[in-house]
Amino acid sequence: MIMTTDTRFAQTKQPGALMAAEIAEQPQVWRNLLAASRGTSSDIAQAAALITAYQPRFVLFVARGTSDHAALYGKYLAEIVHQLPCGLVSPSTMTAYGAQPDLAGVLMIGVSQSGGSPDLVQSMEVARARGALTIAITNQSESALALAAEAHIDIQAGKEHAVAATKSYTAQLLALYLLFDRVRGGSGESAAGLSDLGEKLLGEDTHVAELAQRYRFASRLVSTARGYSYPTAREAALKLMETSYLSAQAFSGADLLHGPLAMIDPQVPVLAVAADGIGGRAMQQVFPRLAEQGADVFCVGTRQAVASAGTGVVLPDGVSEELSPLLEIMPFQQLALHLAVARRSNPDAPRGLRKVTETL
Amino acid sequence: MIMTTDTRFAQTKQPGALMAAEIAEQPQVWRNLLAASRGTSSDIAQAAALITAYQPRFVLFVARGTSDHAALYGKYLAEIVHQLPCGLVSPSTMTAYGAQPDLAGVLMIGVSQSGGSPDLVQSMEVARARGALTIAITNQSESALALAAEAHIDIQAGKEHAVAATKSYTAQLLALYLLFDRVRGGSGESAAGLSDLGEKLLGEDTHVAELAQRYRFASRLVSTARGYSYPTAREAALKLMETSYLSAQAFSGADLLHGPLAMIDPQVPVLAVAADGIGGRAMQQVFPRLAEQGADVFCVGTRQAVASAGTGVVLPDGVSEELSPLLEIMPFQQLALHLAVARRSNPDAPRGLRKVTETL
Repeated sequence: MIMTTDTRFAQTKQPGALMAAEIAEQPQVWRNLLAASRGTSSDIAQAAALITAYQPRFVLFVARGTSDHAALYGKYLAEIVHQLPCGLVSPSTMTAYGAQPDLAGVLMIGVSQSGGSPDLVQSMEVARARGALTIAITNQSESALALAAEAHIDIQAGKEHAVAATKSYTAQLLALYLLFDRVRGGSGESAAGLSDLGEKLLGEDTHVAELAQRYRFASRLVSTARGYSYPTAREAALKLMETSYLSAQAFSGADLLHGPLAMIDPQVPVLAVAADGIGGRAMQQVFPRLAEQGADVFCVGTRQAVASAGTGVVLPDGVSEELSPLLEIMPFQQLALHLAVARRSNPDAPRGLRKVTETL
Repeated sequence: MIMTTDTRFAQTKQPGALMAAEIAEQPQVWRNLLAASRGTSSDIAQAAALITAYQPRFVLFVARGTSDHAALYGKYLAEIVHQLPCGLVSPSTMTAYGAQPDLAGVLMIGVSQSGGSPDLVQSMEVARARGALTIAITNQSESALALAAEAHIDIQAGKEHAVAATKSYTAQLLALYLLFDRVRGGSGESAAGLSDLGEKLLGEDTHVAELAQRYRFASRLVSTARGYSYPTAREAALKLMETSYLSAQAFSGADLLHGPLAMIDPQVPVLAVAADGIGGRAMQQVFPRLAEQGADVFCVGTRQAVASAGTGVVLPDGVSEELSPLLEIMPFQQLALHLAVARRSNPDAPRGLRKVTETL
C-alpha cells in the first residue's frame, strides 16, 4: 500500500513540500506498480492479453500535458519495439470537429492522471464506438476515462496533491513499459532493479539544489534530447514552466538544428539529456553546434556526456535505454522544485493552474 | 513561371530583403500551383489517383521544422475531412533505431522544402520498402526525397533564398489541401479566390511593421490556437525564434490550460489565432483565462476576436476554415521580419542556421 501525502503534509504550508514528497515517493510507487502487475489477473496482464488477441495494426495515443509526454514515450516503445506505426491524436478532431474515423485494427491508449478531462473521455468513447481497442491508463480507477475504455490500467501512484505532476508521470511511463513488455512476452523483471537506482539518484537532491541557484534569474531556457529521451526533454520543460514561470522549450536534437538553434546564446541555458544508448549517441551531433553558439549546457546523462557539458547529473549505469526515461526526469523534477522555491513561488500550487483541466 | 528572387536581390545586402520578397510572392506562388494542379496529368492529380486506388487505412507524415507544421496541417485535413487516423513519424525510430514496421495500408507523406534531409529520405525509403504508398511534397523535383517516393508533388514555389521559410510553407499547405481536395473529388476551385485575399492581407504590412515595435524588447512570447489554426501558432513561433532570437512557444489552446498558463503574465506577449470556424470558436474558452493572467494578446482572426484582444490583424471574410491557415501565417511572417529588422538582426541569414539540415 502506498503511503499518501495526505497525512504527512495536510498541515504544512511550506512551499514545495508536496512536490518534494511526491518526487521522493517515486521509487516506492514503481515497486508497488511492478508488484501489482504480476500474475495473469493484473490490470496490465489483462490489457496485454486484449492487445495480443486484437493484433493492432496501428496505435493511437490520446493525452494532454504531462500525460502527453508519457504517451510520446509509449509511441517510441510501440514504434521501435513493436514495429507498429503510431500517432498522437489531436483530441479536437474527434470532439470539436466531430470526426468519426474507421478505427478497426487500431489500439487507442488514453493516458491521464485524473482521467477526468472531457475531451479525452469523448475521444475514447468515439474510438471505442468506431472499432478501436481502447485502454485507459489513469491514477483513478473510477474515472470517466477508465470507465469509457475497454480495459483500464490503474497506475496506483496514490493521490497526487501537487499541481505539478511528478510521481504520476513516471508511474505512467512504467505502466506503458510493463504493458508493452507483457505483450512481447516479458514479465517486467527487466524493471526490477529500477527502484533501487531511483533511490540512489534521489540522493543527488542536494547537488541539484545547488545547481538550481545558477538559474535563479534565467527567464527562458531550452531542453533537448533524442529518441526515448525526447519525452524527458518535453516533460522537463513543462515542469520548469509550470513551477518557475520561465519559458522553457523542448526540441528534439534534430529539430533544434532546423531553426530554433538561432535563439540559443550564452544567456539561454540548455538542459540536455544524453543517456546511454542510441538517442544519447545521436546527441553527439548536437553538442558541437550548441558549443558553437556559446550555449551553457546542463546535462543529465552518462558520465562522459555530463563531463563534456560541464555540469549536470550522472545517471546510474546499467539501465536500458527503454527504461532510462523513468530515471532521467527525476533530476529535472528536483531542479524545477528548487528553482521555484529559490524564485519564491510555490510549486505545489502554481498561479493560474488547476489540477484537472476541462477542455472540450 | 515564377519570378525568383535571384535576379532582384542577388546584389542587395539589405537585411530582410529576401524574406520580404518571398513573403510578398506568396499569392502568385499559390496561383501558379493552383494552375499547375489542374488536369489529370498534374503531380497532384496523379498522387490523388494513387491514393484513391490504394485506399489507405492510416496516414503518416514525416517532416521537420517548418515543413513539420505543414504536415500537422495535413494531419488535421486527413483526420477531419477524410476520417483517417494519422500520425507524425519520429524519423529517428526508422533511422537511428532501425524500426521496420509493417506499413501495408499506410499512406506516408514526406514534406520538405529541399527534399534533402537524409533522415527524411531514409524514413521514406523504409516506408516504401515496408509497403506504404509514399508521396513526397518538396520544392525540388530532383531531390532525394522526391526520388525516394512513389509520387512527387512539386510545390513550384521557386528557389527560396531566405533561411526562414515562408513561401514554401504556404505552398506546402496548398499542395496538401489540393491533394486531399482532389481525393474527395474536388477540383481545387474552392481555393481559387485565395490569392486575391492574400494580396489584400499583404497590404497590412505597414500596420504590422508598426505593431512589431511593441515587441522590440520582448525576450519571450507564447503563441496559441486550436484545430486547423494550431499549425499557424507553431509556425509563427518558429519564425519569431529563427529571425528574432526570442523564445517563442506554441501551445494548442487546450494544452496551454494544462500547465504553461502559469508562465504567462503581462511581460509575456501572447500571439493568438482565432479565425472563423470551430477552432476559432474553441479559443473563446482560452481568452478569458489569458485575461485572468493579465496577458497582452495580439490576435490574427475575425474582426470580433481582434477587437476583444485589443490588437492584431483582421483576416478577410469568406475563407473556409480549412484554407484559412494559408492566410493566417502571413501577418506573423511580416511580424517576424519587421521585429528582426528592428532588433538589428538579419532574417535572411539567422545566426547558427543552415538552409538544409542534415541529421541522421
